[in-house]
Amino acid sequence: MTIKEAIEKLNDLERREFALHHAMGILDYDGNTVAPKLSYEPRGVTMGILAEEEYKLATGREARDVLDFLKNRTVELGETVRRRIELREKDLKEMESLSMAEYAGFATLMNEASAVWHEAKEKSDYALFAPYLEKVIDYTKLFAARVAPEKAPYDYCLDKYEEGLDSKTCDAFFSALRQRIVPLVEKVKASRQPDDAVSKVYFPVHKQRMLSDRVMAIMGLDRDRCTIGETEHPFTTDFTRNDVRITTKYKENSFLSSLYSVVHEGGHALYELGGDPAFSYTSLRGGVTMGIHESQSRFFENIIGRSRQFIELLYPDLTELCPEIGKWTAEDIFRAANRSEPSLIRTEADELTYPLHIMVRYEIEQQMINGSVNVRDLPEMWNELYRKYLGIVPSCDRDGILQDSHWSGAGIGYFPSYALGSAYGAQYLKRMEESFDFWGDVRSGDLEPIRQWLGERIWKYASLKKPAWILNNAMGEAFDPSCYLDYLEGKIKEVYGF
Amino acid sequence: MTIKEAIEKLNDLERREFALHHAMGILDYDGNTVAPKLSYEPRGVTMGILAEEEYKLATGREARDVLDFLKNRTVELGETVRRRIELREKDLKEMESLSMAEYAGFATLMNEASAVWHEAKEKSDYALFAPYLEKVIDYTKLFAARVAPEKAPYDYCLDKYEEGLDSKTCDAFFSALRQRIVPLVEKVKASRQPDDAVSKVYFPVHKQRMLSDRVMAIMGLDRDRCTIGETEHPFTTDFTRNDVRITTKYKENSFLSSLYSVVHEGGHALYELGGDPAFSYTSLRGGVTMGIHESQSRFFENIIGRSRQFIELLYPDLTELCPEIGKWTAEDIFRAANRSEPSLIRTEADELTYPLHIMVRYEIEQQMINGSVNVRDLPEMWNELYRKYLGIVPSCDRDGILQDSHWSGAGIGYFPSYALGSAYGAQYLKRMEESFDFWGDVRSGDLEPIRQWLGERIWKYASLKKPAWILNNAMGEAFDPSCYLDYLEGKIKEVYGF
Repeated sequence: MTIKEAIEKLNDLERREFALHHAMGILDYDGNTVAPKLSYEPRGVTMGILAEEEYKLATGREARDVLDFLKNRTVELGETVRRRIELREKDLKEMESLSMAEYAGFATLMNEASAVWHEAKEKSDYALFAPYLEKVIDYTKLFAARVAPEKAPYDYCLDKYEEGLDSKTCDAFFSALRQRIVPLVEKVKASRQPDDAVSKVYFPVHKQRMLSDRVMAIMGLDRDRCTIGETEHPFTTDFTRNDVRITTKYKENSFLSSLYSVVHEGGHALYELGGDPAFSYTSLRGGVTMGIHESQSRFFENIIGRSRQFIELLYPDLTELCPEIGKWTAEDIFRAANRSEPSLIRTEADELTYPLHIMVRYEIEQQMINGSVNVRDLPEMWNELYRKYLGIVPSCDRDGILQDSHWSGAGIGYFPSYALGSAYGAQYLKRMEESFDFWGDVRSGDLEPIRQWLGERIWKYASLKKPAWILNNAMGEAFDPSCYLDYLEGKIKEVYGF
Repeated sequence: MTIKEAIEKLNDLERREFALHHAMGILDYDGNTVAPKLSYEPRGVTMGILAEEEYKLATGREARDVLDFLKNRTVELGETVRRRIELREKDLKEMESLSMAEYAGFATLMNEASAVWHEAKEKSDYALFAPYLEKVIDYTKLFAARVAPEKAPYDYCLDKYEEGLDSKTCDAFFSALRQRIVPLVEKVKASRQPDDAVSKVYFPVHKQRMLSDRVMAIMGLDRDRCTIGETEHPFTTDFTRNDVRITTKYKENSFLSSLYSVVHEGGHALYELGGDPAFSYTSLRGGVTMGIHESQSRFFENIIGRSRQFIELLYPDLTELCPEIGKWTAEDIFRAANRSEPSLIRTEADELTYPLHIMVRYEIEQQMINGSVNVRDLPEMWNELYRKYLGIVPSCDRDGILQDSHWSGAGIGYFPSYALGSAYGAQYLKRMEESFDFWGDVRSGDLEPIRQWLGERIWKYASLKKPAWILNNAMGEAFDPSCYLDYLEGKIKEVYGF
């Protein structure tokens, strides 16, 4: 085998892996958006069988031969193939930690757990979901023990979503956040709140759909390559640069909720749509980690989306689609969209209290994975932590422990990415403000310079570079959470005057 | 290998085939409903690779061994396994007529041809689609020559969609239709037309979506197992009893068009939803042929859907969702929905002229497959035949040869099923009228006796029985097209008074 032949085999292998991943992804997207409820059963059968094929392909003789051959010749390889080898090895280690039957069982479980979570959330019935969560936790522990026995199991989880992250770094990060956020939250609680009646106007779903189209146009999301669907819990799925899906959930009396879902998921989509086309059908396609991913989505959602300038830009569309909104000014909407107060639902939390929602989940996940907590006791733990950090307690599990889809998809270790991503974004903002008229561009609706900046420094690399390299490349300095805290304080000052 | 072991292997094999078919079907459904335009490219890659897997599975050593083993022991097998063996042999013959590369190429072509057809139709640009149609014809001829060299190639096509059908039977059937339909069309042309202004009222899409929900409820379509999507050219996709998808296309100034799409596709869906659950994940799942399938969909669309009783039943919903409709009576809508006149679009044709649209396609397909017509000349042939049978000529190919999706999906030989299915339905009606208060039940919205009748005689058998057996079982006598012609004459009499 020559190197050229080996790379051709690698290409073919990754193309086949892409096909299985693509098919499973479309099944999953379909399942979460339009599929009829009972289709979870045939989908489970299909997912299990495709997962077996995926397993056979990735752990098979041919794949191993190519990997072994190329691993021993890294000096002769370019950067892209070297990185592909590195990523393959990591994935292989993960995959072969389970037997094929265990792996297929895991895929089937993911499908079932997702369907059951939807039902449990609808009925606010945690007992329905608990046995599935228990199995998810068992699988996660199994992966951790077999893939990274040298680590505390939760550190394995953190690294999965943000390469290189561990509890120590996370603890320090959250501790820095707590120090400045908690007193600020207390100050805000004691203040007079801006009126947010505008956020509750009746805004018909079919008009909100039109608003989504306009927002996607402003963001520069190419609709020939990116579509929007509707789901219970908004998410983004990507396959290649030519096929990215965002989703949202429309509520007739809460248009900001859907609007910010669209902007958030749109941020994820821009990252995926901006990857180097040469990486399609290889393991380099797609964003590198969830931390970097959330730094795009949270940047668009909050830093841009909740800014005065963006709301002024959107104001004519809002009042055209929903004339009642004309009773309020753009400034009123800006203040309503930035009203900060402890609330129960993470995805609808304001920027300031948002990290507290993440801390609740972080502490629970540590207990789940490192400890031996009884799954039955988790709702109580959840409620206790909400009382401790936010001073409020959900009245039902739908608004509590059942609110997020992540655990039903085995996404344990994902949540810290949201807080980290938010913090990364504030540092991008600082750099962008230094180099062009960021806010003037947002106000005029010209996001191209922003897309350029992010595209050149982050998006185009997809998974080629590790997150630490990406961050350094974008920020030109070490990550510093105080940037984020300064930003949050600035925002609160704008809204509350202190 | 014992028989029990062989059957277990057969089950496993068919389960794996189901998974690939399911994944490809969902990719296709997604591509036709919600996927972004440029996703056809990655979808093509994935479809090609999954088709290769399908080919390997069906033609592989293991599959052949099981088939050979069971084939030699048919006397020891029950009816279901015998039929599965028969269907497998037929499929295997079809599949192995192509090499794996040809087969994967065919799947890729299907995906591309569908995307190009959508674009060509949008732009009314036949030249865009022609090279793909040419390839589709080449593939069809290749299949015919290799699978059934003893037959005229188009007979192979007909048999594919209606087991046992050939040109001779088809010619006789169409000739019988022509004899009584053509003079009736002439008589209608010379008559005063009922006013159809009601069919052009502005009916907002989001209200039409609500109408679809109500119609699906009346039809008894279980929404936990059947969903509705939106597409350019409505179709139904089925996977198992637990996952059936219908689609429609909404036009704001033509609510009857979408309404009858929903009722038509809903008829297909009921057939699929009513199959014996024991057949899931085997080759017995799904309707047996397109003729039987269309006999369900056209029965619901026309015999039930365009009846005075059904329109009276739906009238309160129509006027509630679109108050302007209240300017007309149910009788006005009945007459508008049954106005008969030569028109260009098959899917919107009235019951009487509908078979003429089919005859156009039937004659073209015969030329395409048996002859050596130049693909470039097909639009002219199309227009000539429309002039001959309907007396009108489309002004653009969008309303002419590009109107139907079938050829882009290699569905050559499918069209006669629509006419046959329509005719079968009239004979079912006769039987049902004899045994219960058919029209009273439709008027009261109680379709359960109708579902029972069809379910017991047709739906539950899925692919277990051949169409001839099914028809005989349902009709209790030989198929007789004069039933259909009597029915059509009766309908025309109701509307036109002669």
